[in-house]
Amino acid sequence: MQNPDAAKALADILIHRFGGDRFAPVEMNPSTAETLGRMAGRGSCREFTNDEVPRETVRMLCAIALSSPTKSDLQQRDIILVTDAHQRALLAGCVADQAWIGSAPHLAIFCGNNRRQRQLHERSGIEFANDHLDAFFNAAIDAGVALSAFVTAAEAMELGCCPISGIRNQIDDVAELLGLPDHVFPVAGLAFGHPAAPPRISCRLPLATTLHDNRFSEAGWPGVVTAYDARRHGDYKRQRYVEAFGMRADYSWSEDKLRQYSRPERETFGAFVRRIGFKLD
Amino acid sequence: MQNPDAAKALADILIHRFGGDRFAPVEMNPSTAETLGRMAGRGSCREFTNDEVPRETVRMLCAIALSSPTKSDLQQRDIILVTDAHQRALLAGCVADQAWIGSAPHLAIFCGNNRRQRQLHERSGIEFANDHLDAFFNAAIDAGVALSAFVTAAEAMELGCCPISGIRNQIDDVAELLGLPDHVFPVAGLAFGHPAAPPRISCRLPLATTLHDNRFSEAGWPGVVTAYDARRHGDYKRQRYVEAFGMRADYSWSEDKLRQYSRPERETFGAFVRRIGFKLD
Repeated sequence: MQNPDAAKALADILIHRFGGDRFAPVEMNPSTAETLGRMAGRGSCREFTNDEVPRETVRMLCAIALSSPTKSDLQQRDIILVTDAHQRALLAGCVADQAWIGSAPHLAIFCGNNRRQRQLHERSGIEFANDHLDAFFNAAIDAGVALSAFVTAAEAMELGCCPISGIRNQIDDVAELLGLPDHVFPVAGLAFGHPAAPPRISCRLPLATTLHDNRFSEAGWPGVVTAYDARRHGDYKRQRYVEAFGMRADYSWSEDKLRQYSRPERETFGAFVRRIGFKLD
Repeated sequence: MQNPDAAKALADILIHRFGGDRFAPVEMNPSTAETLGRMAGRGSCREFTNDEVPRETVRMLCAIALSSPTKSDLQQRDIILVTDAHQRALLAGCVADQAWIGSAPHLAIFCGNNRRQRQLHERSGIEFANDHLDAFFNAAIDAGVALSAFVTAAEAMELGCCPISGIRNQIDDVAELLGLPDHVFPVAGLAFGHPAAPPRISCRLPLATTLHDNRFSEAGWPGVVTAYDARRHGDYKRQRYVEAFGMRADYSWSEDKLRQYSRPERETFGAFVRRIGFKLD
């Protein structure tokens, strides 16, 4: 599907995604424009065909994910492929409101792993002098970076993906099911497979709000949210917590996010992280 | 550079990168294989030509980065482009041992941003019920995911990148220079530009150690490190902290990581994160 107008198509996707922002087509070869256009036009996939992705392909995608940048070459991340149907069902049961995960063709769990580093220190007798927040943080980011690369690589193969932070909802149960030792923790799950439909491109906040020159700026805030909500109006088939907040005709992004975070999510995560040995000082 | 043997080339890169692991070529179209091969063969770039990347291209890459997955559509990340030479020099001065950052053609700072969400709550009077570790964690991962997508997109345009976690070394100074308000924090910097040389592909731990089936496993540990160190032997032009540890003929990955983490790194990060308003309970 080489397309000489791929650079124009890429610019059009970004204009759609970011709203009023202007994007001139950038000169590049069609193959690059196609790659970037796919990244710009991505969206999460929650409905899949029954076709399986061959084991060899999944393994290759994991290797590509683990080829992504890693803080100081420390490689503080692991991937757990959940292939056993029973194990999958148990894990899906830990993400109560996303039962579809149980029937997605494939599930991978991206974990932060600060354990290997500590094992090196134990073995050598050289003190591990970083028992503070940064040790936990670096492993977490390493896992997030790998997950992002996996998504890009899988989507380049026309697979669909959906990251699942909800895998941390019942974190103690999930860690036990996965047999995670101390200093290893799930960052996110990833459901993937052959998509049953093309992704929906969800609009993003305008770059005027999220991209800054030299210093952070809040120019235009909060008016930008009002305009953004107008663009997202109609994206929400279901309103959250109607029993508490009622139905709103102008329901949109900010109302959805407000309602979501009016209830605690994963308030046990910190206790878990401490229990598996991290200090967060 | 369409290449019918691209799938074979991709498999060969992964075999080189992961050592004894076997990778059969996976059937795919040459353009996809080229994209994945570039991701598999990536490496950080610290030497650049003097050519600038046009503003429009940088902006497009930022938009693609911000099109990547974001936890619950919350979009808790921002990018700060450091274009001002004076600002750049001041920031480079905060990463003492990486002075080259000051002369890289471009520098972006990827930030976690939990501030917008809290502002929505303040404005509406609806309580923000997630003042615990998860709120900080999600924003951090969001930034890491965007950084990873930026790297992939930039490298697809044959640019070179180097993530810089050291931007958090003097975190208070960096936050002040960038004018970061409460609940906004740098996750990593990213230097990028036109590479002066092709990247070095650094070997990764074998998948036998980092990729697991259904449950976490430590089979083969720690023997795998000995074998991996043998593969990495010769990668290190400079030994760390020779005054404390001496010179070793068998210096390799694990010795380098041990020495690195025998000294505190960013031990003030937790205090900073709390100072800008996060609870990490």
